[in-house]
Amino acid sequence: MVLVSKLSTVARRLVLGTPFRSDKLAHTLLPKRIALPVFASDALSSVAYAPEEIFLVLSVAGVAAYTMAPWIALAVVAVMLIVIASYRQNVHAYPSGGGDYEVVTTNLGGTAGLTVASALMVDYVLTVAVSMSSAMSNIGSAVPFVGQHKVWFAVAFILLLAALNLRGIRESGTAFAIPTYAFMIGMFVMLGWGFFQIEILGVPLQAESAGFEMHSEHGDIVGFALVFLVARAFSSGSAALTGVEAISNGVPAFRKPKSRNAASTLLLLGGISVTLLMGITLLAKETGVQIAERPEEQLVGAPDGYQQKTLIAQLADAVFHDFPLGLFLIALVTALILGLAANTAFNGFPVLGSILAQDSYLPHQLRTRGDRLAFSNGILFLAFAAIAFVVAFQAEVTALLQLYIVGVFVSFTFSQIGMVRHWTRLLRVETDAAERAKMMRSRVINTIGCVCTGTVLVIVVVTKFAAGAWIAILVMSFFFVVMKLVHKHYATVQRELAEADAEAGDDVVLPSRNHAIVLVSNVTLPTKRALAYARATRPDELEAIHVSIDDAEARELKTKWEGSDFSLPLKIVASPYRDITRPVMDYVKRITKDAPRTVVTVFIPEYVVGHWWEQVLHNQSALRLKGRLLFEPQVMVTSVPYQLNSSERLKNLEPKSAPGDARRGFLE
Amino acid sequence: MVLVSKLSTVARRLVLGTPFRSDKLAHTLLPKRIALPVFASDALSSVAYAPEEIFLVLSVAGVAAYTMAPWIALAVVAVMLIVIASYRQNVHAYPSGGGDYEVVTTNLGGTAGLTVASALMVDYVLTVAVSMSSAMSNIGSAVPFVGQHKVWFAVAFILLLAALNLRGIRESGTAFAIPTYAFMIGMFVMLGWGFFQIEILGVPLQAESAGFEMHSEHGDIVGFALVFLVARAFSSGSAALTGVEAISNGVPAFRKPKSRNAASTLLLLGGISVTLLMGITLLAKETGVQIAERPEEQLVGAPDGYQQKTLIAQLADAVFHDFPLGLFLIALVTALILGLAANTAFNGFPVLGSILAQDSYLPHQLRTRGDRLAFSNGILFLAFAAIAFVVAFQAEVTALLQLYIVGVFVSFTFSQIGMVRHWTRLLRVETDAAERAKMMRSRVINTIGCVCTGTVLVIVVVTKFAAGAWIAILVMSFFFVVMKLVHKHYATVQRELAEADAEAGDDVVLPSRNHAIVLVSNVTLPTKRALAYARATRPDELEAIHVSIDDAEARELKTKWEGSDFSLPLKIVASPYRDITRPVMDYVKRITKDAPRTVVTVFIPEYVVGHWWEQVLHNQSALRLKGRLLFEPQVMVTSVPYQLNSSERLKNLEPKSAPGDARRGFLE
Repeated sequence: MVLVSKLSTVARRLVLGTPFRSDKLAHTLLPKRIALPVFASDALSSVAYAPEEIFLVLSVAGVAAYTMAPWIALAVVAVMLIVIASYRQNVHAYPSGGGDYEVVTTNLGGTAGLTVASALMVDYVLTVAVSMSSAMSNIGSAVPFVGQHKVWFAVAFILLLAALNLRGIRESGTAFAIPTYAFMIGMFVMLGWGFFQIEILGVPLQAESAGFEMHSEHGDIVGFALVFLVARAFSSGSAALTGVEAISNGVPAFRKPKSRNAASTLLLLGGISVTLLMGITLLAKETGVQIAERPEEQLVGAPDGYQQKTLIAQLADAVFHDFPLGLFLIALVTALILGLAANTAFNGFPVLGSILAQDSYLPHQLRTRGDRLAFSNGILFLAFAAIAFVVAFQAEVTALLQLYIVGVFVSFTFSQIGMVRHWTRLLRVETDAAERAKMMRSRVINTIGCVCTGTVLVIVVVTKFAAGAWIAILVMSFFFVVMKLVHKHYATVQRELAEADAEAGDDVVLPSRNHAIVLVSNVTLPTKRALAYARATRPDELEAIHVSIDDAEARELKTKWEGSDFSLPLKIVASPYRDITRPVMDYVKRITKDAPRTVVTVFIPEYVVGHWWEQVLHNQSALRLKGRLLFEPQVMVTSVPYQLNSSERLKNLEPKSAPGDARRGFLE
Repeated sequence: MVLVSKLSTVARRLVLGTPFRSDKLAHTLLPKRIALPVFASDALSSVAYAPEEIFLVLSVAGVAAYTMAPWIALAVVAVMLIVIASYRQNVHAYPSGGGDYEVVTTNLGGTAGLTVASALMVDYVLTVAVSMSSAMSNIGSAVPFVGQHKVWFAVAFILLLAALNLRGIRESGTAFAIPTYAFMIGMFVMLGWGFFQIEILGVPLQAESAGFEMHSEHGDIVGFALVFLVARAFSSGSAALTGVEAISNGVPAFRKPKSRNAASTLLLLGGISVTLLMGITLLAKETGVQIAERPEEQLVGAPDGYQQKTLIAQLADAVFHDFPLGLFLIALVTALILGLAANTAFNGFPVLGSILAQDSYLPHQLRTRGDRLAFSNGILFLAFAAIAFVVAFQAEVTALLQLYIVGVFVSFTFSQIGMVRHWTRLLRVETDAAERAKMMRSRVINTIGCVCTGTVLVIVVVTKFAAGAWIAILVMSFFFVVMKLVHKHYATVQRELAEADAEAGDDVVLPSRNHAIVLVSNVTLPTKRALAYARATRPDELEAIHVSIDDAEARELKTKWEGSDFSLPLKIVASPYRDITRPVMDYVKRITKDAPRTVVTVFIPEYVVGHWWEQVLHNQSALRLKGRLLFEPQVMVTSVPYQLNSSERLKNLEPKSAPGDARRGFLE
């Protein structure tokens, strides 16, 4: 019956295990070959859905529009290269790992920073939702059962990931390296073998959907409608850029020279991304893949019950036409890297939370990473928010992407504006010509980056707003407002304290009398200890009081007390209405009344136990009393713990690692 | 994100309001005219369903069997009179209000007492479920919409009742008197006017179901089957006895002479119950009411979509045939008294819980009634358990009664066995002849009561076991085992303490050194106060320490500290991994190590705030640290509260009353 108040603690304990100790982990800095997989999964995994979306959007105008796909992909590549060049400047200028939030807050102020933070929070949620949905689509292309129950599988895997992060996965380089390198190898083998067959062996590879006829919805699309369509396809393709900023958050985890290594890893990542993006787009073109938004309506000639495979799966199917396992392997490695990408959000979200807490935008306790609790709340929040999106959008990647890209480009754009400001500020004071030249160069790059990402942001908002971006913007605004309010509260308290401080001046009321009260409920060792301890604080007055809710019991206690060697009388406070808190409060008030310099210290013996259900059985009255006493001025409450045997249990539980350790350079 | 840990508190605060102060209520003792409605609703309301169940069971054997109904009702009346005579003995012998649990525990020992307690707990749950289901059936007889959505309405009203009790209804005599007297008047008017029309005016009153043909299921039922059927009908009719024991729990609330007044109120209650029970049964017979278990199959000649009304409603319909409002009024007062009966369970359940807690069968904090929290958990538990039964049995009174009666007769029987033992024990030492004669008489009454209720219990178990009584027995066993385990835990702790106490002897380690540590996170008034207070406890050593999770911040703090007039240095403990708890723990351990007689007192400045969401924003790190420090031997934790302005809010909230106040004699 009393469980209500304890259930959250219990539930948490069951999934979380015990608090971890970060000081047990050595701070190993990451070599580039490990840093690449640790930070690249998010960016690389987006090539699993970005090219597909280009074809999907273009399909509205019929297959003829597919000729534009490589050009649109090229535009995305161009933007990506610019963004990467820009972020290489960020990495050099802000090696502290604060990322976009730090850059923007420093250069554009708190409100802009908070805007970026809100966008990043939404991004993390959508990273999980999009990556898991896409992962299930890919697995579903090889295993139809998963495809038919995509939503359930996506939800289940999000919960699994959350549970793993809640328990604390010991992060090792291998855990990151295997899926990432496997995906890269898989993709390169698929693309290489595909082009080799087509170009060298002359095998005419045909995707399974190549033979269908694409029913274009609106007949010929021309003029403004066509421009809009192309813009939409480009926006969707820009999803390939999600995650490239990750490295700028992780500079401190790199080996020295940190910034240079981070920058070259970023370049390497960019090169791989660009190659995969173009390779996939071109091979799709070659094999005649057709991707429709609504397959059952648009694809004429498809067999009954045709389940449209993902672009990657169709390519794998075509390339490995005589090796059916190929499709499974490609689907598997794609799903794995997408899962890893979702995991980065679970790592990054609590870290962002701790930075925001540091700046008083979120509850202060989230700052520390000493207890898993703070992280856990972040992980649970992220998981449930992502699940909400997955369920609401039925795990449809296309629908979720409408919400995703806007947040990404909000932070890109703000970050680049911030960087331009940064260089301008530095240039104002820099006199060394060589340095100035370097800064000028950097500023030019960031300006190009800023204009470019800003343009994409406008295109994204215009083409996606009605399709779902408004939801993302709404959620961002909500986060923004909540964090503003938290900030305001802390500022108010700060002001209240400053005022009280000023009022008090140097004249802090020094208590002149310390009146100690020991609460006695029985004559056992914990009570004796509390009494001995209270005596050791040498109070001006020491009293032992017992609140009697049962006369017979009180009499018995009194007899026992007098038989013991306490050398101070036990006062019995009667409580006819069987209440403990009120009589103690009244007693204490009588002492402090008219004695402004007297401090009352209430000593409460407490049992320390090792199981949550024991906690339910003990100390609850004490806890309630403590809670009430805190509201009384001039009263201090001292807990005198007595460790019961069962408490030993909690001491010996093994500490574990924290999620996101690898990204901060903690590895096994 | 941190809300998880706070949600239960929040939710509770929203529905509960603030803790109440019982000492604000005057202890007004109840005159009989108020005591009757306060305690009678449970017993009286059961005539709303008991006679109906007799007819319903007999319907299996066809309408011919209805001739037995008055005889079965008469048997129930006989049992009721015996039980009332028996409980009049209880009231005299145990005026303390402990009720059956006290009688049984005192005379038959703890295990028997716990059995009765388990039965009573199940009873309370089923009182709510049965009363609310029956109330909805009655309302549903007048308002078909309610009848068609009985389950939803029953659940909604249980939740409403729980919410009212959670907030604390200020109980007044009127609130009890109006529904109870209205029901009594309504019933007597209906019966009186009914018989007057038939006997004096010669109007042949016909119930709406009188014209149907009852299709008997098994043709002619004879021999053993008939005996079994009659026994089943009798068992169901015994539901009329539920609630007669209520007065025995409430003796202390009566005006003096308490026992005599309680006993005469019990007799009055019995008289009314018996009259109503017989009156309803006879009038039902006269008006030819037919009640079927499965109306759509059994009632031949009923119109399509016929919705069978309750017996009470059919009588009201027939009696007030030319005054349609009559049906509504009778249905309303019946539902009201049933609602009141459900409410008595909400009052009685927490009281039973507090008695069980006193005996260490439930968490100790449930003993006190000082905070609404303990009561709230009981109320919530009761509401959700009752809802579970209502939903599981689709608010069917007949089905729920199968579970209900067994618990009632378990406590009746145990209680009467206990009473027989009680008198035997007293007789052993009593020498006064007049007293002995009285005791002998009482013992004879209780022996008859015991044999009688025991027999009914056997009949109930035999006829109802397979129909659902097994579920009630299972739930009772569950409660029994849980309470046994709680009891065992407390005993274990008691033993552990006794052993430790014996080991320590008179030689309780008196701390020889008190090493005080003040945790500093900023230089504000709360910190200054904590420091001043720590100094007032005159420790052997006093240190101010700051755990630094941010170097710049720590340097700033240090400068500020040195600028202030603290006359003691600030130690900075570095925490490279941004954890607060661990460094403090390590620091403390270093002090206590090799110094068994040193006690470390950690002073933690704490903000006291008035809103739950402020609580989320403050003190969380302190709370976590406190939780960890309690596990460390030789460490005491002192909270030095600082009341922020918002904390004023909680002080001024109006205190409210506790559920069940009236039954303990607290009235406005």
